[in-house]
Amino acid sequence: MDYAKQYQEYLARANQALEKACEIFLPEESEVCRAARYSLLGGGKRVRAVLVLAACQLAGGDTAAAADYAAALEMLHCYSLIHDDMPCMDNDDYRRGRLSCHKQYGEATALLAADALVTAAFEAVANAPTHPQSRVQAAAHLAKAAGARGMLYGQELDKHYETVHASESELLELHAHKTGALIIAGVDLGCDAAQADDALCTALQHYAAELGLVFQIVDDILDVTATTEELGKPVGSDAENDKTTFITLGWKAPAAWQSSIMMLPWLPWRILARKQTFCARWQWSC
Amino acid sequence: MDYAKQYQEYLARANQALEKACEIFLPEESEVCRAARYSLLGGGKRVRAVLVLAACQLAGGDTAAAADYAAALEMLHCYSLIHDDMPCMDNDDYRRGRLSCHKQYGEATALLAADALVTAAFEAVANAPTHPQSRVQAAAHLAKAAGARGMLYGQELDKHYETVHASESELLELHAHKTGALIIAGVDLGCDAAQADDALCTALQHYAAELGLVFQIVDDILDVTATTEELGKPVGSDAENDKTTFITLGWKAPAAWQSSIMMLPWLPWRILARKQTFCARWQWSC
Repeated sequence: MDYAKQYQEYLARANQALEKACEIFLPEESEVCRAARYSLLGGGKRVRAVLVLAACQLAGGDTAAAADYAAALEMLHCYSLIHDDMPCMDNDDYRRGRLSCHKQYGEATALLAADALVTAAFEAVANAPTHPQSRVQAAAHLAKAAGARGMLYGQELDKHYETVHASESELLELHAHKTGALIIAGVDLGCDAAQADDALCTALQHYAAELGLVFQIVDDILDVTATTEELGKPVGSDAENDKTTFITLGWKAPAAWQSSIMMLPWLPWRILARKQTFCARWQWSC
Repeated sequence: MDYAKQYQEYLARANQALEKACEIFLPEESEVCRAARYSLLGGGKRVRAVLVLAACQLAGGDTAAAADYAAALEMLHCYSLIHDDMPCMDNDDYRRGRLSCHKQYGEATALLAADALVTAAFEAVANAPTHPQSRVQAAAHLAKAAGARGMLYGQELDKHYETVHASESELLELHAHKTGALIIAGVDLGCDAAQADDALCTALQHYAAELGLVFQIVDDILDVTATTEELGKPVGSDAENDKTTFITLGWKAPAAWQSSIMMLPWLPWRILARKQTFCARWQWSC
């Protein structure tokens, strides 16, 4: 199995679904939509979208049905990044090697562009070519993961721990929400598309929760070890802001991770592809 | 028929659904959720929610099924107001007679509070006690009305016409999106709850489009004739900002409207209750 090739196939399918969603939901006559497209189509690993497609395939579903869910999740992720970068939040000028949305288009347009993305995400799910029951499940999963008991709570905690030092358990709670919720939503949406059984969904949720944690640990490492060119955004910001991270807490990451900046995009597929190991690990009978 | 009493009954049902939605989707341990509740539960005429309930009843549906949709629409409306009031948008310090969300809780929390409301709106629809087909229709209607081809496009045009004078047709286009889209969504969601036939939906959409226009005309009048106490927000802002309004375009409104500030909340029910007149007006056979 050529993981890199498989990942590229999923990536191509996700990007195709995103292009289609832009055509339908974000007409380019609008400046707000152009700003949304600028942020949405400006690259990115699309790990969440790949997770949707991989989970759907693992569950025996048709990935064509999952493509709109994959696009929706990426749109929702992108909306969160635009709002996160704004001056009243993290005040970041760069994202993925380019000016962040509000630096390129102004604050008002960036605010509305993100709002357009979150509504387009739900519109894509609601109109996906799947059974209505699958769509309402996907919409419920997406909303719960993105909302005040999911990602937004993580953003709230992140702001809070800018002024107060987080303990290890508090840091885990923060990232379980801020990063983990949308990673878990990836496998949830894949299962929704395939109408997978509950046992597989639960197993995949456990897997995704750990994957989300890996993500954040690698992110913390990269903030120390990578260059601005490699990351496409300024590095060293955690130390500069005196932030608690998995590094400052003394977590020892495998040496392989530290030298594997490029490994991250392949992780979901690498792990999911090892179906037998995965099943044994999560006590799922396959 | 006592319109005021009927309106109060709908209003009570809508407020009850909103309280329930807050309990489920916006836990008050979170500062972001407290900010969302502050704006959401701080009064308001709930005209959009009443429209959902009234349209559902007119179509022969059970208003209990429509209550969650009504709450969702009000949450979505409230999110738009919070973002609209922010410094990078209209920079309004007051809303409904109280400090606006960002003045009370700070910009970051207000930004996230509105984001929590929009996701909660879709979560409420996705989990409503109705048929899955009804819920996907409602989610699609809500997203389209709120998104880049609906309300958000109106907000974009509103920003645009701060610097350029709008013609009458441009002003009509602006308000058809900024105000009209969510008013039309009110009747759409009511029809979705009742699974009404297409002919009735179309008739109600026409009605709601005109109602949305009446709304905006009354709003323009009130900005000239009402007091800050009556409106709960500063008056005279249109003239101060040299904005094109239906007043500056010379539209003559019926004298009754000008003296009927309190009539506005009853309008949807007053008109819907006259079913025979309504049917004749919109060529719908009832």
